[in-house]
Amino acid sequence: MRQSMQEMVHAAQDEICAALAELDGSGPFRVDTWTRPEGGGGRSCVLQNGRIFEKAGVNVSVVHGTLTPEAAKAMGGGQHLTDPKDLSFFATGVSLVLHPHHPMVPTVHANYRYFERGSEGAPAAWWFGGGADLTPSYLFDEDVAHFHQVHKEACDRHDPAFYPTFKDWADRYFYIPHRQETRGVGGIFFDNLCDRDPQKLFAFVKDCAQSFLPAYLPLVQRRQSMAFGPEHKAWQQQRRGRYVEFNLVYDRGTTFGLRTAGRIESILMSLPATASWTYCAPEPEAGSDEARLLLATRTPQAWA
Amino acid sequence: MRQSMQEMVHAAQDEICAALAELDGSGPFRVDTWTRPEGGGGRSCVLQNGRIFEKAGVNVSVVHGTLTPEAAKAMGGGQHLTDPKDLSFFATGVSLVLHPHHPMVPTVHANYRYFERGSEGAPAAWWFGGGADLTPSYLFDEDVAHFHQVHKEACDRHDPAFYPTFKDWADRYFYIPHRQETRGVGGIFFDNLCDRDPQKLFAFVKDCAQSFLPAYLPLVQRRQSMAFGPEHKAWQQQRRGRYVEFNLVYDRGTTFGLRTAGRIESILMSLPATASWTYCAPEPEAGSDEARLLLATRTPQAWA
Repeated sequence: MRQSMQEMVHAAQDEICAALAELDGSGPFRVDTWTRPEGGGGRSCVLQNGRIFEKAGVNVSVVHGTLTPEAAKAMGGGQHLTDPKDLSFFATGVSLVLHPHHPMVPTVHANYRYFERGSEGAPAAWWFGGGADLTPSYLFDEDVAHFHQVHKEACDRHDPAFYPTFKDWADRYFYIPHRQETRGVGGIFFDNLCDRDPQKLFAFVKDCAQSFLPAYLPLVQRRQSMAFGPEHKAWQQQRRGRYVEFNLVYDRGTTFGLRTAGRIESILMSLPATASWTYCAPEPEAGSDEARLLLATRTPQAWA
Repeated sequence: MRQSMQEMVHAAQDEICAALAELDGSGPFRVDTWTRPEGGGGRSCVLQNGRIFEKAGVNVSVVHGTLTPEAAKAMGGGQHLTDPKDLSFFATGVSLVLHPHHPMVPTVHANYRYFERGSEGAPAAWWFGGGADLTPSYLFDEDVAHFHQVHKEACDRHDPAFYPTFKDWADRYFYIPHRQETRGVGGIFFDNLCDRDPQKLFAFVKDCAQSFLPAYLPLVQRRQSMAFGPEHKAWQQQRRGRYVEFNLVYDRGTTFGLRTAGRIESILMSLPATASWTYCAPEPEAGSDEARLLLATRTPQAWA
């Protein structure tokens, strides 16, 4: 499984970066291969200040080593450990965040990962995690419906209970308590997934990863040529401030990375190139496009 | 003491806002008075998009109520509690953060606060906390020396051990582990201060609060007319990203506020109006002004 998952996440990274680079048209992704002193490493692919993308990062990591007891606790999966004293671990995953320039083209995130604790071949615990979520500044119902629908179809091919469960999980996970808003309009999220044959879960996770491009690319194509003004950019910058708040305060991957001295540039590659914070920004006018977006972040909706 | 401290922080807020508004010249601070459902309230004074200040916030709060056991633990002062079951508390303080437009004029923060747990008049525990720290994007040694010197003199009037102790404490407190940098060039920081007559500590804290304007205003006057270009603004925006990282990830007041549902606009008023994150931003050239600043954040120096 370690080998299969590594191959899958690298293939996903290659395919996604190739498609995004072709769409953007401003040149290839910058590729940084890095190693982790404690074991393993990764490959970060980033496109900055492109034609479509202000900042697009697609990261793969394959890391192993020994966890501190605190890190083991934060990492989860504890309920499956047969030997809690064995703190060796293996983790691999692909993670991406795309922040487009255009305020009508949504920010998007996806992440698929596999963990093991204990020995290769006979792990004390293993699990899959992942998901994908959409963060528009302006709401186009058909875009959100498409993004959810493609992920629902991927889920449904494996278990009809997956989409409703993982859609609700995303609504809970991508919630910003201090704003009483979700980060965006959700998608799917799951963690500690180990309730059936690992090959079946691997096939599901692979299917999700392969659903990313068909779920997202049509949204870029539909919105990239729409007219917009400085007021739309200002609203996008404010929404990006919320994205920063979620990632730095609540996101498990980011907060875990910051506390375990991972490669900082890869951890914070998810932050937007620019963001803004206005004190007591006026509440958008009732019925405006901005108010519609806010409403969707305050009351999760059924999209698929 | 509750009454004396409340009067002091309100007077400090009035005096500082009046001086900053006069310096800025773009109109008075916006004043928001707010109440807290659980008890108490505050007054937030903010100037946005002024002539000098992109965002300047000066906040006073006077709050009381009952702590959760977790909040009591996070709040500190535990070593002095005679009745750990009494979770009633009182807290008052003044807190300010100023972010100027001009990249040569430093960002600055100051905060002075008083806590009590238990009954008024016979508290189970009480303590003072506070400090002031400077966050320049460009380093002018004489500015940093002046800021430290004014605070050193305030400290020295009360105890010659204060400045060296509180200067070191600031260097440790305003540290960003994941960047291996301090937020800026420090100043003073202290917490849980209750080792002598409360009247003596009150006099010290009041002296510090009154030192803010003489420590900071000359820096604005010296730098506000210097020439600068877009490269200086870009560096300032990158440094502001670090400010956001410190405040959202590490700052005790901010993280405590986010978790205890305080007034969110007052808590996050400390964030800059704008900030940026570049993936793998190039390390500044050796000997450049930007490199000098970084060096100061990586190796705390003696400034006074």
